[in-house]
Amino acid sequence: MTDLVTFGETMLRLSPPQGHRLETTDDLDLRIGGAESNVAAAVSRLGFDSAWLSKLPDSPLGRRVTVELQSHGVDTPVAWSDDDATRMGTYYIEHGGAPRGTNVIYDRADAAITTVSADELPTERIRESEMFYTSGITPALSEAAAKATATLLETANDAGTTTVFDLNYRSKLWTPEEAAVGYRALFDAVDVLVAAERDTREVLGRDGTPEDLVSGLADDYDFETVILTRGDEGALALHDGETYDQPVYEADTVDAVGTGDAFVGGFLAARLDGENVATGLEYAAATAALKRTIDGDIAVVTPEEVDAVVGEDGAGISR
Amino acid sequence: MTDLVTFGETMLRLSPPQGHRLETTDDLDLRIGGAESNVAAAVSRLGFDSAWLSKLPDSPLGRRVTVELQSHGVDTPVAWSDDDATRMGTYYIEHGGAPRGTNVIYDRADAAITTVSADELPTERIRESEMFYTSGITPALSEAAAKATATLLETANDAGTTTVFDLNYRSKLWTPEEAAVGYRALFDAVDVLVAAERDTREVLGRDGTPEDLVSGLADDYDFETVILTRGDEGALALHDGETYDQPVYEADTVDAVGTGDAFVGGFLAARLDGENVATGLEYAAATAALKRTIDGDIAVVTPEEVDAVVGEDGAGISR
Amino acid sequence: MTDLVTFGETMLRLSPPQGHRLETTDDLDLRIGGAESNVAAAVSRLGFDSAWLSKLPDSPLGRRVTVELQSHGVDTPVAWSDDDATRMGTYYIEHGGAPRGTNVIYDRADAAITTVSADELPTERIRESEMFYTSGITPALSEAAAKATATLLETANDAGTTTVFDLNYRSKLWTPEEAAVGYRALFDAVDVLVAAERDTREVLGRDGTPEDLVSGLADDYDFETVILTRGDEGALALHDGETYDQPVYEADTVDAVGTGDAFVGGFLAARLDGENVATGLEYAAATAALKRTIDGDIAVVTPEEVDAVVGEDGAGISR
Amino acid sequence: MTDLVTFGETMLRLSPPQGHRLETTDDLDLRIGGAESNVAAAVSRLGFDSAWLSKLPDSPLGRRVTVELQSHGVDTPVAWSDDDATRMGTYYIEHGGAPRGTNVIYDRADAAITTVSADELPTERIRESEMFYTSGITPALSEAAAKATATLLETANDAGTTTVFDLNYRSKLWTPEEAAVGYRALFDAVDVLVAAERDTREVLGRDGTPEDLVSGLADDYDFETVILTRGDEGALALHDGETYDQPVYEADTVDAVGTGDAFVGGFLAARLDGENVATGLEYAAATAALKRTIDGDIAVVTPEEVDAVVGEDGAGISR
Amino acid sequence: MTDLVTFGETMLRLSPPQGHRLETTDDLDLRIGGAESNVAAAVSRLGFDSAWLSKLPDSPLGRRVTVELQSHGVDTPVAWSDDDATRMGTYYIEHGGAPRGTNVIYDRADAAITTVSADELPTERIRESEMFYTSGITPALSEAAAKATATLLETANDAGTTTVFDLNYRSKLWTPEEAAVGYRALFDAVDVLVAAERDTREVLGRDGTPEDLVSGLADDYDFETVILTRGDEGALALHDGETYDQPVYEADTVDAVGTGDAFVGGFLAARLDGENVATGLEYAAATAALKRTIDGDIAVVTPEEVDAVVGEDGAGISR
Amino acid sequence: MTDLVTFGETMLRLSPPQGHRLETTDDLDLRIGGAESNVAAAVSRLGFDSAWLSKLPDSPLGRRVTVELQSHGVDTPVAWSDDDATRMGTYYIEHGGAPRGTNVIYDRADAAITTVSADELPTERIRESEMFYTSGITPALSEAAAKATATLLETANDAGTTTVFDLNYRSKLWTPEEAAVGYRALFDAVDVLVAAERDTREVLGRDGTPEDLVSGLADDYDFETVILTRGDEGALALHDGETYDQPVYEADTVDAVGTGDAFVGGFLAARLDGENVATGLEYAAATAALKRTIDGDIAVVTPEEVDAVVGEDGAGISR
Repeated sequence: MTDLVTFGETMLRLSPPQGHRLETTDDLDLRIGGAESNVAAAVSRLGFDSAWLSKLPDSPLGRRVTVELQSHGVDTPVAWSDDDATRMGTYYIEHGGAPRGTNVIYDRADAAITTVSADELPTERIRESEMFYTSGITPALSEAAAKATATLLETANDAGTTTVFDLNYRSKLWTPEEAAVGYRALFDAVDVLVAAERDTREVLGRDGTPEDLVSGLADDYDFETVILTRGDEGALALHDGETYDQPVYEADTVDAVGTGDAFVGGFLAARLDGENVATGLEYAAATAALKRTIDGDIAVVTPEEVDAVVGEDGAGISR
Repeated sequence: MTDLVTFGETMLRLSPPQGHRLETTDDLDLRIGGAESNVAAAVSRLGFDSAWLSKLPDSPLGRRVTVELQSHGVDTPVAWSDDDATRMGTYYIEHGGAPRGTNVIYDRADAAITTVSADELPTERIRESEMFYTSGITPALSEAAAKATATLLETANDAGTTTVFDLNYRSKLWTPEEAAVGYRALFDAVDVLVAAERDTREVLGRDGTPEDLVSGLADDYDFETVILTRGDEGALALHDGETYDQPVYEADTVDAVGTGDAFVGGFLAARLDGENVATGLEYAAATAALKRTIDGDIAVVTPEEVDAVVGEDGAGISR
Repeated sequence: MTDLVTFGETMLRLSPPQGHRLETTDDLDLRIGGAESNVAAAVSRLGFDSAWLSKLPDSPLGRRVTVELQSHGVDTPVAWSDDDATRMGTYYIEHGGAPRGTNVIYDRADAAITTVSADELPTERIRESEMFYTSGITPALSEAAAKATATLLETANDAGTTTVFDLNYRSKLWTPEEAAVGYRALFDAVDVLVAAERDTREVLGRDGTPEDLVSGLADDYDFETVILTRGDEGALALHDGETYDQPVYEADTVDAVGTGDAFVGGFLAARLDGENVATGLEYAAATAALKRTIDGDIAVVTPEEVDAVVGEDGAGISR
Repeated sequence: MTDLVTFGETMLRLSPPQGHRLETTDDLDLRIGGAESNVAAAVSRLGFDSAWLSKLPDSPLGRRVTVELQSHGVDTPVAWSDDDATRMGTYYIEHGGAPRGTNVIYDRADAAITTVSADELPTERIRESEMFYTSGITPALSEAAAKATATLLETANDAGTTTVFDLNYRSKLWTPEEAAVGYRALFDAVDVLVAAERDTREVLGRDGTPEDLVSGLADDYDFETVILTRGDEGALALHDGETYDQPVYEADTVDAVGTGDAFVGGFLAARLDGENVATGLEYAAATAALKRTIDGDIAVVTPEEVDAVVGEDGAGISR
Repeated sequence: MTDLVTFGETMLRLSPPQGHRLETTDDLDLRIGGAESNVAAAVSRLGFDSAWLSKLPDSPLGRRVTVELQSHGVDTPVAWSDDDATRMGTYYIEHGGAPRGTNVIYDRADAAITTVSADELPTERIRESEMFYTSGITPALSEAAAKATATLLETANDAGTTTVFDLNYRSKLWTPEEAAVGYRALFDAVDVLVAAERDTREVLGRDGTPEDLVSGLADDYDFETVILTRGDEGALALHDGETYDQPVYEADTVDAVGTGDAFVGGFLAARLDGENVATGLEYAAATAALKRTIDGDIAVVTPEEVDAVVGEDGAGISR
Repeated sequence: MTDLVTFGETMLRLSPPQGHRLETTDDLDLRIGGAESNVAAAVSRLGFDSAWLSKLPDSPLGRRVTVELQSHGVDTPVAWSDDDATRMGTYYIEHGGAPRGTNVIYDRADAAITTVSADELPTERIRESEMFYTSGITPALSEAAAKATATLLETANDAGTTTVFDLNYRSKLWTPEEAAVGYRALFDAVDVLVAAERDTREVLGRDGTPEDLVSGLADDYDFETVILTRGDEGALALHDGETYDQPVYEADTVDAVGTGDAFVGGFLAARLDGENVATGLEYAAATAALKRTIDGDIAVVTPEEVDAVVGEDGAGISR
């Protein structure tokens, strides 16, 4: 039995060295990144069996993704596309500090996953899994992907698999209005909602204090757990009528991309381990902080390292 | 006045280090490549004014192309696309010696140039230019690109600009039958034809000795000059009823991609310089041999270096 | 069920860039290498389930090995050592062409595997597997490793799993005399023997023509198959009374280390696929030739690439 | 017509990787740098036609400079020197944080530009340009360079081209006393003066508040605009009797070299665009802050990025 | 005559690039590091003759150490081991900011130095030297190394050579109790003790204020000088009944490893130069701060740079 | 006592990666190179004491040279120049295979050594040395350098130190006529002459067979030994009336620069070791062949490696 199955798109991630620009660089670092595979990799590294479902072109570029995910122990029973009209989603990222900021260029149209159907995926893996995770990026990719997302969430729900959904609003994929409709169509099948405060306000159109936001969401959609992520201000969760406030751990950031997914991965791993929500949030925040010190989207961490951060003795040199 | 105007697609070229594979690499070299910009760059580096026409996405990735071409002195009055449905054509190349060979993965669908129209391009540049060059890749990209290719060739023809066309058959873009139809629709407007022997046989369906091939083509389509490129066996040209046989110069190959374009660039530069066809072929072969020693698609050479190869004293250390 | 289980040591492999020396380099490439994991990786990449058994220190260095093997789809149910007196075997390699040659410095004493016992390994995996492979390096590592090798070979033998053994003589681990005794103690349990011609002569003390060598070995130890590897002269096999001569495919060598293991991997994959010995040798030689074009110990290839070499159309650029 | 012409020396810039020292490094990054080409590149990138005048050795090292400047769209009608007694100016830079600081070693004696004469340069380009910029480095290079600087400034002045001069005092080229004499000889032909506060005090020997400095300079030399650059304290400008105070934008600095030139480039681009001095200073400060996040001397920026900083929404990730 | 002789182990130091992890990296930086050679290199670079005694395997890996130390002017009359059972000590270091911290993996068992005997070393060099330095790491390596340490300290003491000892407690080599016994056995022969505050408390079991610690140590063991290093809080020294408080100089840290050794090196160089303890501490702190800006264990600095930091004008760009 | 003292210029050597060009590269490898230091380094690495005399700017660039030479055990009692008008000689090298060849750009004017005087150098080191080596590059650098060369050769001669001189004609430093005069002025003080066949013909204006050349030179100038180096055809020596013919060892060339100096270094080391001329030439050729496999000017080899080549068992992998 798998502990966690996730479903979504993973892209090639291409970035110039620090301080260099896409316009002029001769060198690109090649990594992979996708919310759902990032979560699967974090959970696998933290000691649980995870699998990632997706659709990839049957090419070295597609295999680049499975090769890296397998290296972290993630099982990758994906659908392989031979359709030449589909391709490998790609994104370019240029890291820049203030005031330049980080610039992302998506090149993901016609990715193989836009043609995915639930039929091509081993849905029994979801039924036999303890948890299922996907994010709001997936239904935004195409009508087919939206339909598959709905089917897989319902499959999980019917089988008693705990479903986890992160809004992950992407303005380059759909408008807030479209996203709100898309999200609401899925909420019935969702047990645990993860939502950035900004998306909650700007996409779901909710307002009030953070506490208002989590209780409003929980009330309206009957979520088992709601986690509001608030950037530097940490996270606020509501579960079983109780709220939990989790600050961030300070981190020397090398690469901020994937921080949110590491947070979710840390939370789910703790929950799979039987920890309560409060402890889950600690592990989430610790995994997220560790991720920031590491190049690439994926939280290349160990359970011991997360424990050390939670136990607050991570830094310094041991010799 | 410009000496040479070219029109075509230029892609980003991504390749892992020697001996590394796309499936497992963490590093990619980023270069640019496209037959028509390769020719324009070679001609500019060899001392003549050249311009390259195309359509690019208005993004850092699109500008990556113009930045590099400008560095070689090529003028780049391209059309910039704001259409989010178009993108930057990209190709991945994995260099491998025998028996692995070199593997190319094209990711060029929906490139901005597939939506190009002659109207968006500064066609007066072609009318005022001495030569115009494009290749058989361009009409294969899309119906719109095919139409623009025809229009630009006719524009050149009408203005008395010498037109140069390289078959450059690409099996991943169209079938031999489609290509043959596409080529023939353009031949009327072509003065100088460059054709790989293999394409001449397999796409144009011609046979006989190399001499038969060049004379047959010249007779059937009334080309001013026909150049048959024959790989390691050199090139055979027919011009004004005379044939010219040009062997290759030996080269220690670092990167073979772009050799054919360097050949054309060397030939056109010599012709722009008033040299006859025989000398033009020598410069073509010398430029091609130099290109093979250089990383990337572009022949980063000087006229003095080409002279030295033609004069056969290129190698050794001068100190 | 697993198709192939292998057992042996895998080391970290550290090498300076081409033309640089260990004495003066500031940069090392880190790869992993070990005959048995190389074979497991090749077989996995060629489409079969493989697992690698070993013992590693429970540290980032130990995990470096499983991370890379998993990336190639190899299952790694290894024993993890917490014993601080054991360590990660390491080897340094300096590639040099003629007349410098390639220099290898082993630093493998007290590797975790020297303390391995069959009890700590999932021997049921061997019993349920179609083939089991180990090499003559493993019993040379320590008395414990020798004992475990014998136990695992016998386990395989008893279960009807085809056993494959490659002499792989290492002069830095034991003398020819010690090795001969060690090998002979295991031969009873071996079905398929792979032996370098030089080891056959210098360690096993046999002489005669290559044909004499294979028939002598087969007769004396009742091997089902004997494969004599002969460097540039290819390989000679004896199976069911028939001999098979397989020449090498020419290759532009980037990294020769691991060529022999790729040969074995290609052979076993073909045999797992139901191919006969003659075809198996072709696949072996093709996989070996491809390996030479690739950096690192592991044959990062695909079945299609091996097919292409066997079908003799591997080189050139397809576009 | 060109919008801006600049005149001055550009050097090769060689620097070891971060944390490495010239004494021990095996790797150098090669960039180019020079106040006047930095300004020309910034202005070109911000959307205006610019040209850079200079004298370079006719060698690959000299062309290294024009190749890079052309890549940013700068026109480079330079004089090429065949005189073997002249060379390419070079500087070595070792970036070090506190308390080590940044160390610069100039190797610029006998650079080709030290033999420059106004006659070898296309002075009509200056007469037809809207603005002309040079800095106090140029006259310090040699008597010939000083004479050419004076001639070009006067040429500009006579033609009604706005002249811009940045003191850019370099203690390794001349003493404060020599510099003061050199500057004053040129001030009559200068419309816009840019002066570091320190140079104003230590070289020009002025004192008082920053306001005193700008008004004193404007009064004494009848400058149209005076801009006093004050490091972290921003800039103070006087124009048409009004003073303008511009703070710096905070920046995560990757490479501080070229910040002042980016400031001037941003200011001149805004002025060429018809913006007033206040807005010009904002663009100056924004361009300077962006430059600090970018490796190399040149502000590889876009107008949109500068707009974003001025509009204060540059940071964060947009996706 | 040599100014300083040191004795101890130097290891190869292998580290992945910033933000990368040992588990997944393909690249390692190779440096060397060891307290005693770090001190010898710093003192040599600061203008004094130094020699480093040790025992190394007679291999390219052993020579990697002497090559680098010689480059800094350190004389390396080491004993070379041909014993295959001994090896080159190695350590892996993964730099990570908060909250990950820096992780060190030692792989130093059976290093050649563990078999060292005073007889194999040129002890006359110690007798003829002004100072002798070793640290608490050396006696912890093996019984033989402990015996050699004692012999060499006594040799120095007998010859009137000033002896300097740094506790340098390493928990991975021995327990606090073992270390305390080991240290005390050597204290009689020590003139100058350097001790981290934490080691003083946790290993030597002392308590009280920092002032109590230094005076207690000086009283109990009759040290000529005691220096207590206190991390960010600087250092406190006691000499001739007087205490000296030295704060740290702020530093932009690139690599913190070796900071303590640079501190000792700066102190000893100043003392060799005839400076008093107060000035010695300033040079110690300045050398340590400079070290932090430099990659690797060794303080690649010049006397002028240390002077500049002490004179507080190190930062900024001089041009 | 030193075994060998050499005197000459060493330059910084800057080169782009293979296949890259100076015009477009962003990366340079930094090495050092100079005939006389190359010889000193080879001799030191082969087991003899060597020292290199020269004059360098007192800067990190000057120290870059001594740091690297010291790393190979070469003593560097050089004169340090504080004269800002002198600089560090530099050369740029672009490796290119056929037909491009290798291009060298010297930037050595006003190097510190051009102001050298014998007075500033520790000439007693020459008097106490067994051999003294310099090459025809040194007197070509400046009048001062020529005078110092003569003085040092005479000093050696007077003291009975064997003097070795390699013509090393450099056409960019002087004409053949000037060189011939310069050489002849020194020949009286030379015991062992090394001369490239081409220089012998084109500069010294001699003709005939190689045998004629060596005997003619020996007769005319009374050299003890004459070695004619003949590129791929090996070397021919005359000593004591006997001629010795030495072919080259085949080598996979990574970097050919410094081959001739490695040849001389190997020869001198063998002679210092008491070997006869025939054996000396074997060691010379072996050291030269090894050098070709190694990046940089310097033969980073060991005596064992040279022995292995002479004994013809260098290639292959030993494990």
